[in-house]
Amino acid sequence: MQSLLMQHVPASVYEPMRYVLRSGGKRLRGVLTLLACQAVGGPTRRALDAAVAMELLHNFTLVHDDVMDHADLRRNRPTVHKKWNENVAILSGDQLVAYAYRSLLSSPATNPAPVVRAFTNAFIDVCDGQGLDMEFGVRQDVSLAEYLQMIEKKTARVISASLVIGAILGGGSEKFVRALRTFGLQLGYAFQIQDDLLDFAGDQKELGKSIGGDIIEGKKTFLLLHAIERSRGKDRHMLKSLSPRNGAQRLRAVRALYRRLDVTTGASRAIAAHTSKALQALRPLPANRGTQMLSWLAGQLVERSS
Amino acid sequence: MQSLLMQHVPASVYEPMRYVLRSGGKRLRGVLTLLACQAVGGPTRRALDAAVAMELLHNFTLVHDDVMDHADLRRNRPTVHKKWNENVAILSGDQLVAYAYRSLLSSPATNPAPVVRAFTNAFIDVCDGQGLDMEFGVRQDVSLAEYLQMIEKKTARVISASLVIGAILGGGSEKFVRALRTFGLQLGYAFQIQDDLLDFAGDQKELGKSIGGDIIEGKKTFLLLHAIERSRGKDRHMLKSLSPRNGAQRLRAVRALYRRLDVTTGASRAIAAHTSKALQALRPLPANRGTQMLSWLAGQLVERSS
Repeated sequence: MQSLLMQHVPASVYEPMRYVLRSGGKRLRGVLTLLACQAVGGPTRRALDAAVAMELLHNFTLVHDDVMDHADLRRNRPTVHKKWNENVAILSGDQLVAYAYRSLLSSPATNPAPVVRAFTNAFIDVCDGQGLDMEFGVRQDVSLAEYLQMIEKKTARVISASLVIGAILGGGSEKFVRALRTFGLQLGYAFQIQDDLLDFAGDQKELGKSIGGDIIEGKKTFLLLHAIERSRGKDRHMLKSLSPRNGAQRLRAVRALYRRLDVTTGASRAIAAHTSKALQALRPLPANRGTQMLSWLAGQLVERSS
Repeated sequence: MQSLLMQHVPASVYEPMRYVLRSGGKRLRGVLTLLACQAVGGPTRRALDAAVAMELLHNFTLVHDDVMDHADLRRNRPTVHKKWNENVAILSGDQLVAYAYRSLLSSPATNPAPVVRAFTNAFIDVCDGQGLDMEFGVRQDVSLAEYLQMIEKKTARVISASLVIGAILGGGSEKFVRALRTFGLQLGYAFQIQDDLLDFAGDQKELGKSIGGDIIEGKKTFLLLHAIERSRGKDRHMLKSLSPRNGAQRLRAVRALYRRLDVTTGASRAIAAHTSKALQALRPLPANRGTQMLSWLAGQLVERSS
């Protein structure tokens, strides 16, 4: 990633890009691309440029989403629009996608079409998902089923594409590509629900962002929609009318209600179910180091604390 | 373009996209792609999806640039962030690029790599160009040479890529592709300087935006930088300190100074010189209808009023 961004002019574009890419993060998507390539028997270096592309795409979504959500912190540091301004965040986000395509096109593929197509579909999905997420913000009647459709687009499909692209570049058969697509989708669901859970049950320092932010912003998360389904009367009304206007005052009440309704158990069960489906999907793959690592990773994500 | 956007959900993404694409405009970039294909002897339908992609890329830049420039009007209608809000403009802009790639990938090319690479380079250039343009906004020492570098990136290279991509899809030889690349760059320079000129000498109604906006915003345009080069003392100081803070008050004074310094002649000469170079570049191409139309278009753009 660093060698891709050797350019320094205009500084208002490249400095924020480097800032974002130096900020760490789990590098989950890039790692999945490399492991998928390895799992189908390819050398990981064939998937390196594509792994970088997946990370750039992901970081683009973070920069633009943080503008749209007015988020101040990301990975324990000020977000791009806070450190610079919104224009810089919009433009450096755009340039992150452009460089993602540049990196993707450096991949050693005789025909790059399937790879670029899978990447573009994920790009479209993630925009659709963000649009749904934004619309949920001003709706009171979002169902758990709609929420799952949203996180499929916003999170699961990019994770799935990371695996599909690695598998294609590794020369994987149709069967292997399909298996890794399913693994990615299920892992994506589990990953996002775990993300929602951490906002309630996680540790602020480890997460690099404030705990309870989702409740304060009245965000439609798995926990909220699950709690709405399990509640009645006044409790249900309070949860359904949660919004950025009243979220901060209701934080304690909502947290107490979440505990009373035992929503963490519901979330943990959903995470376990999706993780189990993900692991099942891996069965057709050769039992090599790549597959083992994917399987190990799926287990780790469920237990992660950030 | 319409058939590409049949999807309706999420409405907050697809409605603004359709709104932008229905707003007309010259469709210059798409037309250039089709004509370049025809000029090298290809059937225009081979370049149709790519022509759509160039229009989508261009409209993406308009939507995001309008947010960054706080522009209220575009093509006689409210800009996306004015009609909806900034979040909608950021996200539907992102989705316009994503669909641009989708359309590009529908092109009937055995190997899409050169086409996608030329497109991606133009995408990177246009972001670099916008970054430079934004930086110029807070600098007082921008030279005419730097300005020309900026418009090459922000305008000329996308126009050039439109032609290159059409030529590649039409099966054009290296020589033809190179000729059309040069034609596009020179046409792009002429086009942008004409754009700057219209802000001073054009008609508000035909343009679909306010006249004098560049002066009011203190934008570094060909006219301003040319006027700075031709002025001395107090006049020069006034022009160099033009900014969004004082632009509105100084509008009349700057316009009077532009007339006194005869900047329109300077701009017209630059436009004529670039147009002439563009036309010269067309010489190696077959004298078919595509080439004739490109040549005619280059002449028209110089005389356009919107």
